[in-house]
Amino acid sequence: MIEPVVLKGFRDSLPGEEIPKKKIVRILEDAFSSFGFVPIDTPVLEYASILLGKGGGETDKQVFSFSDNGGREVAMRFDLTVPFARFFAQHFSDLPLPFKRYHINKVWRGEKPQKGRYREFIQCDFDIVGADSALADYEILSMMNHAFQAIGVDGFTFHVSHRGMFNALLSSLSLESKSVEILRTVDKLRKIGRGEVESQLCEITGDSNSASRILEYITVEKDTFSSTLDCLEKLCGECDGSRRMREIEALLKETGIIERFILDPSITRGLDYYTGIVYETFLDKIPGIGSVCSGGRYNDLASLYTKEKLPGVGSSIGLDRLMAALQELDSPILSNTRSADVLIIPQGNGNREMALAKELRALGAKADVYLSENPKPKRYFDYADKNSIPYSIVIKEGKILLKCHKSRESFTLDDASEAYRMIKG
Amino acid sequence: MIEPVVLKGFRDSLPGEEIPKKKIVRILEDAFSSFGFVPIDTPVLEYASILLGKGGGETDKQVFSFSDNGGREVAMRFDLTVPFARFFAQHFSDLPLPFKRYHINKVWRGEKPQKGRYREFIQCDFDIVGADSALADYEILSMMNHAFQAIGVDGFTFHVSHRGMFNALLSSLSLESKSVEILRTVDKLRKIGRGEVESQLCEITGDSNSASRILEYITVEKDTFSSTLDCLEKLCGECDGSRRMREIEALLKETGIIERFILDPSITRGLDYYTGIVYETFLDKIPGIGSVCSGGRYNDLASLYTKEKLPGVGSSIGLDRLMAALQELDSPILSNTRSADVLIIPQGNGNREMALAKELRALGAKADVYLSENPKPKRYFDYADKNSIPYSIVIKEGKILLKCHKSRESFTLDDASEAYRMIKG
Repeated sequence: MIEPVVLKGFRDSLPGEEIPKKKIVRILEDAFSSFGFVPIDTPVLEYASILLGKGGGETDKQVFSFSDNGGREVAMRFDLTVPFARFFAQHFSDLPLPFKRYHINKVWRGEKPQKGRYREFIQCDFDIVGADSALADYEILSMMNHAFQAIGVDGFTFHVSHRGMFNALLSSLSLESKSVEILRTVDKLRKIGRGEVESQLCEITGDSNSASRILEYITVEKDTFSSTLDCLEKLCGECDGSRRMREIEALLKETGIIERFILDPSITRGLDYYTGIVYETFLDKIPGIGSVCSGGRYNDLASLYTKEKLPGVGSSIGLDRLMAALQELDSPILSNTRSADVLIIPQGNGNREMALAKELRALGAKADVYLSENPKPKRYFDYADKNSIPYSIVIKEGKILLKCHKSRESFTLDDASEAYRMIKG
Repeated sequence: MIEPVVLKGFRDSLPGEEIPKKKIVRILEDAFSSFGFVPIDTPVLEYASILLGKGGGETDKQVFSFSDNGGREVAMRFDLTVPFARFFAQHFSDLPLPFKRYHINKVWRGEKPQKGRYREFIQCDFDIVGADSALADYEILSMMNHAFQAIGVDGFTFHVSHRGMFNALLSSLSLESKSVEILRTVDKLRKIGRGEVESQLCEITGDSNSASRILEYITVEKDTFSSTLDCLEKLCGECDGSRRMREIEALLKETGIIERFILDPSITRGLDYYTGIVYETFLDKIPGIGSVCSGGRYNDLASLYTKEKLPGVGSSIGLDRLMAALQELDSPILSNTRSADVLIIPQGNGNREMALAKELRALGAKADVYLSENPKPKRYFDYADKNSIPYSIVIKEGKILLKCHKSRESFTLDDASEAYRMIKG
């Protein structure tokens, strides 16, 4: 006998988790496609050289890679961005431009397993490639807002800033050459606090005046989007970045969604990769969980694989983290895990019950049939309970006896459509 | 520069393929859940010893396996049956019984790539475990019928037989000990033809009389389900298998779907694993493509991992083969790949157009916005064409100008709801 276990850092998804997960994925897919975004998929395995082209030592250790039976060095994808870059370079001439795609699927990283961190998890990425406009920036932000509303997330705020404005500030302080280190430090503000950031900035810049100018910028008092923008523009000077932010602000206002957005200059997204807007998404009631949707604008998606310049803007939702957050928020979307609307209990050969099940399904109900002949009530009530099925039906002398498990009421009904109305009403 | 390519035997899924694939998966999920089936998921990577516990040499070579960074021997799943057996043994006490699950996801096999054969492909499995009843057998068959109808497959027939009846025949010929070889030979009838099967059976049984009795059974003239059952019962004798088939027949008749089913004793499903009904699904117009949905009843799902006896019945759809078949059948489900209902062309800052897009989405339309300011008509018509978007909108002097790309007609409209009615009507 082999002991049935899964690998460390991996887990099964039981129906109680998989049913709401599928529901959330559908909501996201519908949200994205209502904006004209299209789905793609890429192989789980790729040439290691393609996936790791950009990666440093830190990434490599975390990647599941091996030699296949043909001696090729292959790896399992560790994110959806690198495969998308390869995909885009490869299919460039067949794709409409701008290209708006989403991709929801699993990725793998050999990280040390710990609470809430797994080696297999689901990413949900969406990008617009081939357009560098305020409209494209706005559309990603607006779609995020639409998606979070559709899921019914209770209280979320998008924190947005612009890398170009931050760069203009650094430039005015002649600190462009140290931008990578500075960005990384600023990105830690939430974690290590203001004092520690200031002392690290002093060390990097070698100049306490510069350090306090940067600190002043990233901790500016956050008021309305527009007044914060005024303040920041005073600090960094008018520039392409600030003009772009004004356009985005106008679009957010015009469409009535600006209340969801905070201009927050402490958001920098550590990576050098980003060049325009950057953003993170926090849940008002549980900020400690961190950002559940992040991203920004980049100059060039696929420079490793093609000479085409491909500017884009995109986001990533960590679906597992979002699910964990919804759990903490007691979100109703997680609680409805019923497998069916009604459980039909067959008597004898079950012919009549199967015919009734077929009628109920044709009407639009989810009808389950308890699949043993002449079953015991204890058994099938237990089955209904484990599957959260709210009603059961027994056919007796040609009549439908419908029972509501919650109220314990029973009803005697004539036909399937009467039963359907009771179940769905 | 790294050349952007995928591994041999792997492929990307572009929107033109991914959009209908997602549609088909949703239809299948909805079909399954209307029967009260629940979804599960399992890790892509498992201990090699767990996945290969049952496999022989042939399977091992085809499996992607390797040592992970912690020195564990791991493998990527090569089907959804073995992980389900492990899953069931592991979570047995938490699951409702009978357990009805479906699982739609990728599996990997290092097979020699050839036309229509890939190393990464999608399986769709559904099983009822913990019930050995005619009702359970019928429910799987009935759900298959429901699913194929829902997809709109043009002409399909389920070929069903019963292993118990075939075993009764072998038993009457004292050939039980050779059943594995005989099953394998009979399974080749479609491929190698009647004459070759007969001569192989002669060789296996060493007795031309037995060979012709078997041949007579598997090539019995196929009439209605009930009269074929009468004929076969005469040949193999009344037995548990034939009684079970009578019960299934009654259920198929009662629910009015028996026309879709042919009792076909040449169906044996080579594997020793099956013990009751077995079935394959053929497309009337393209039988040459082989079975697109196969399965049967087994005695024991998870004997490798648990002592619990777990009888079940289940099927598997090869989604890629089904997609290829639908392509050959010119199925309408594949042809609608539009990314959106309407493309809105922004003018200037695009504020009004983004507000209109939001209104249209709230009404239920998929509204895409072409994301560059002041774009050229050639560009955006080309974009609409590549995305199969049937309408476009320009806002001019406060009026909505809606253009139908097919008829080339234009309409001047007042508001979003008027536009919505035109687009959706």
